[in-house]
Amino acid sequence: MHTKAFGAYAANKPLEAMNIFRREPGPSDVQIKIAYCGVCHSDLHTVRSEWGGTIYPCVPGHEIVGHVTAIGSNVTKFKVGETVGVGCMVDSCQHCYACDDGLEQYCEHGFTGTYNGATSDEPGHTLGGYSDTIVVKDKFILKIRHPEDQLAAVAPLLCAGITTYSPLRHWKVGPGQKVGIVGIGGLGHMGIKLAHAMGAHTVAFTTSESKRQAAHDLGADEVVISKDADEMAKHATSFDFILNTVAASHNLDAFTNLLKRDGTLTLVGVPEHPHPSPNIFPLIFKRRSIAGSLIGGIAETQEMLDFCAEKGIVSDIEMIPIQKIDEAYDRMQKSDVKYRFVIDNATL
Amino acid sequence: MHTKAFGAYAANKPLEAMNIFRREPGPSDVQIKIAYCGVCHSDLHTVRSEWGGTIYPCVPGHEIVGHVTAIGSNVTKFKVGETVGVGCMVDSCQHCYACDDGLEQYCEHGFTGTYNGATSDEPGHTLGGYSDTIVVKDKFILKIRHPEDQLAAVAPLLCAGITTYSPLRHWKVGPGQKVGIVGIGGLGHMGIKLAHAMGAHTVAFTTSESKRQAAHDLGADEVVISKDADEMAKHATSFDFILNTVAASHNLDAFTNLLKRDGTLTLVGVPEHPHPSPNIFPLIFKRRSIAGSLIGGIAETQEMLDFCAEKGIVSDIEMIPIQKIDEAYDRMQKSDVKYRFVIDNATL
Repeated sequence: MHTKAFGAYAANKPLEAMNIFRREPGPSDVQIKIAYCGVCHSDLHTVRSEWGGTIYPCVPGHEIVGHVTAIGSNVTKFKVGETVGVGCMVDSCQHCYACDDGLEQYCEHGFTGTYNGATSDEPGHTLGGYSDTIVVKDKFILKIRHPEDQLAAVAPLLCAGITTYSPLRHWKVGPGQKVGIVGIGGLGHMGIKLAHAMGAHTVAFTTSESKRQAAHDLGADEVVISKDADEMAKHATSFDFILNTVAASHNLDAFTNLLKRDGTLTLVGVPEHPHPSPNIFPLIFKRRSIAGSLIGGIAETQEMLDFCAEKGIVSDIEMIPIQKIDEAYDRMQKSDVKYRFVIDNATL
Repeated sequence: MHTKAFGAYAANKPLEAMNIFRREPGPSDVQIKIAYCGVCHSDLHTVRSEWGGTIYPCVPGHEIVGHVTAIGSNVTKFKVGETVGVGCMVDSCQHCYACDDGLEQYCEHGFTGTYNGATSDEPGHTLGGYSDTIVVKDKFILKIRHPEDQLAAVAPLLCAGITTYSPLRHWKVGPGQKVGIVGIGGLGHMGIKLAHAMGAHTVAFTTSESKRQAAHDLGADEVVISKDADEMAKHATSFDFILNTVAASHNLDAFTNLLKRDGTLTLVGVPEHPHPSPNIFPLIFKRRSIAGSLIGGIAETQEMLDFCAEKGIVSDIEMIPIQKIDEAYDRMQKSDVKYRFVIDNATL
C-alpha cells in the first residue's frame, strides 16, 4: 500500500512530496489516517542529519494524531473510527527489564523510533507522521479522550507533553512544592502547564523579559529572568525540582544553586556543544543531583493524555500546511513560534 | 584552660607546637582527652589556606577519638572515662529543616566546623584535634563501641568513614546490588569495606594495576583498571550506584556510562580544577544522575560507628608522632599511605 508523504531525499535537500510504502495491517496492527502531526526540533535535526546517521528518504514526524481506519484480527483495544495517537516509538523488544517496567523508552535493545528506526518494512527504516497514513503495533497506540475540536493541539503532547510529564511525575512533583521550568518553548510551555496542573508552585525561567506575561498566561505562578543575577539570588536554595528544557549550551550552576537540599535539576535536551562544566560544590554541599530524562513509556504517555484530557490541557499551536514546513523549521530555529507548529495533514 | 596543640601561624609556615585555649565545660559540654587524631586531606588544604579563608593560628584535625575527662551538669548521655569521638562538626543551628532532619552537615545556617569555624571561644575560631584536649557540646559527641585496642584505627571513621557511609545508605546500597567505588585512598578504602559489609557486590576502580590485590584484600569482589577501556566496556550499564572518591579532575563519562537506568554517580570530592564537562547524553538516555554528598549527620555517624563496631570494621592506618606531620602531608599528597595517617596525640 502506498501513501502520500513529505520528506527529504538527502541532508541538503528541502522536504518534498513523495509516495511511501505502508505495510498491510498484520494481526496486531492498527492503521491510522493521520489528521495532524506536530513539528519537533528532532524532526529538523534528523532530516538534516545534524546528529548523523539519518537514512534517506527521511520522513519525520512523531507527534501523530488521527483516526483508526483498519485493525488486525488480534486487536481488541481499538476500533475503526476511534481517535488515537502515536508518539516517538513504534516498537521495542518487549522482554528486557525496561520494557517489563513499562519504560520502553529505555529499552535495553533500543526502541524503534517512529522515524529513522530499523524495520523489516520497505525501505528498511521507519517513516514518520508527515504522511497520510501509518501502520503501528497496537501496543504503541494511545487513546485520545480530548474533544475532537482540540485534536490538532493534542498532537504535541505525544512528544513535548510526555517529555516534560514523565520527569515531573518521576521526581514526584505535586502540591506544596516549588518547581522550576527553564525555557519557554515547545517543551517548556508544556512543562509550565503540567507542573501547574499537578499543583506545584510553578516558576518559569526565561532569558527574555518579553516572555514574562506569556509565561504567566501559561500558568506560571512566578517568572524569573535568568540573566538577572539579583532576581536569581532571591530564589537560592528554594526549589524542590527544576526541569531544564533548554538544549543550547548554558551555565547549569545558576540553576543547581536554586535547588533545596536533595533537589534535582533534570535535563531533557542534549546540547550540540557541551554545557560549561558544572560546579561540583553546590552538588556536594546540598546533596543535589543533575539528571536526565527521555520522553516516557507507553503506559505513562496514556496516563499523561488522560491527565491532560481531564484537566483540559493541550499545546498552544500554530497550524501550517505541509508546504510551509521549511519556513516553519527556519522560524522554529529562531524560537519564533508559540509554541509548536502542527501540520494539517489534509494538505498533503 | 590551656592545652598543648600543633598548628600553623600562617599559610607558608610549618606546623609547630603551641598552647591553645579551651573553655571550661559548660552545662551541656563534654571535655575529652584526645588519644588519636586522623589526618585528612582537608587538614592540609586548610592549614595551607589552599581553599582560602583560613584563620590563623590554625589547628587542624577532625577525626578525633579519646576519653571523657569532664562533663557539664546537664550531660546525661556520657560519663567520665567513656570512649568517644568527634568528627567534622562541633555545632549547628539546631532549628532549621536540615538540623530537624538530623542532617546537621546541611544546616541552612552553616554548621560549625571542628576547626576554622566561628566560635565565641578564644581566639574566635575553632581549633581541631591536633591537640591534647577538646571541649564539645554533647550533641556532637559520638559513642565508640569498638574494642579499646582498635581506637586509633577508629579515628578515620569520623570523616572518611561517614563521608562514604552516608551516600551508600542514602542511595540504599545493599544485597543484590552492584556498587562501584572509584579511588582507593583514605575515603575509597573505607567505601570498599562499607559497601562490601552492606552486602553489595563491590567493584573497586583504580588507575593503578599495582592496587589490584590491595583492593581485593579490602573486600572488593572485582577490581577494574579504569584506564583500560576494554575492561570498562565490559561493565557498561551494570551498576546500581557508583561512589566517586577522587577529587582530582577526571572524565566522569567513563563512570556514568557504567550505571544502569536510574543509577547515580555520587561525588564526594570537590576538584581543584573542574572535571571535563560531563556528557549529557548518557544521563538522558538512561535517566541517570550525577550527585554530591557531604559527610553525614550526627545520628547517622553514630549509626555508622555502631555498624562498624558490629562488623569489626576499622580504617587501615599508619600511626605517626605529631612531629612527623609535615612528612605525612607530603606523603599523603603523593598517595603514599595505606590508607590513613593517624596521629598518636600522646606525642604532643
